Amino acid sequence: MPHINVDPNLPGIRSLMAFSPETAEPMGVLANLLLRSNEGLSMADRELIATHVSYLNDCFYCQQSHGAIAVCYLGGNTDLVDQVKKDYAHADISEKLKALLSIAGSVQKGGKYVTTEQVDAAKALGATDKDIHDTVLIAAAFCMFNRYVDGLASNTPTDLSSYPLRAQQIADKGYGNYIFKNKQPVPDGQQI
Amino acid sequence: MPHINVDPNLPGIRSLMAFSPETAEPMGVLANLLLRSNEGLSMADRELIATHVSYLNDCFYCQQSHGAIAVCYLGGNTDLVDQVKKDYAHADISEKLKALLSIAGSVQKGGKYVTTEQVDAAKALGATDKDIHDTVLIAAAFCMFNRYVDGLASNTPTDLSSYPLRAQQIADKGYGNYIFKNKQPVPDGQQI
Repeated sequence: MPHINVDPNLPGIRSLMAFSPETAEPMGVLANLLLRSNEGLSMADRELIATHVSYLNDCFYCQQSHGAIAVCYLGGNTDLVDQVKKDYAHADISEKLKALLSIAGSVQKGGKYVTTEQVDAAKALGATDKDIHDTVLIAAAFCMFNRYVDGLASNTPTDLSSYPLRAQQIADKGYGNYIFKNKQPVPDGQQI
Repeated sequence: MPHINVDPNLPGIRSLMAFSPETAEPMGVLANLLLRSNEGLSMADRELIATHVSYLNDCFYCQQSHGAIAVCYLGGNTDLVDQVKKDYAHADISEKLKALLSIAGSVQKGGKYVTTEQVDAAKALGATDKDIHDTVLIAAAFCMFNRYVDGLASNTPTDLSSYPLRAQQIADKGYGNYIFKNKQPVPDGQQI
């Protein structure tokens, strides 16, 4: 049961964003900027980093939600997403993305765990300063989102069949419909 | 030395926000919403929670910056801020704030560390749902900000005399001047 009185019909972070629409807005804007871009890192790469960090933080809702979005971008390849969560070193992804996932894993433990050697390795594999910046900030942001969702014990659908439909909506239209103004959801598809 | 090429004349998160002004904007908006409000929790309470979490995350820049802002709101009482960082249970603050700092400390470890008993104790001492929401989100947001600052190894002024001046500017005018548009600082005092 959630620690505060939120709408029981909304899952996870959506219930918290409806409770606090003012803070929901910049959080939604940040999610869109970090996850809905193909500049440098692809949207699939970005969702894989978010999913891996959410897995490390043991946040069921976020790892299922963002894992399902990554699956949409990866042509339905659920096995690949599962492997990136648990054992990315042996997954069929680029060496550059592996190096960035290593950095993201360090950020999950704490900022000071990121080493110059990890950053140099990623750069040697083609990562730009922007790629490294975005990786660190995606990982850091999910250390926030995961704690927000679980720190308030928000409702987490355990029926895994509920995630893919919502994921496809976000894959198609972005995170705009996470934003609540005046406690009313913005219509699906309206971008922020 | 920072892991990416940022302006060496800017400290901590300000150098990262200048590097990435697009993401700086929602992060600044979120900081203002969470820290520049006296609704329920006072601005001093909010900065103390941010400072305590930054201390637990061992983020020198954030604990010095936000500790100095808390000092501004608390009439120059540096001893109180130091004690809240290291041993809030014996600090001269309300029992309600101690209960909320306990929740913030759990969020710092991970969302699932927050217990119903902690939340019930805070509510019994007068904490509202909004107080608990804001405490969890401030703590979660600083798990992001701290990791952003240290995960990219941003420059951290070690001269403690540099923090109070900046802190007084923020205490007077808010976080608006953290925001960079087109890589130019918004003039001090202009709110976002």
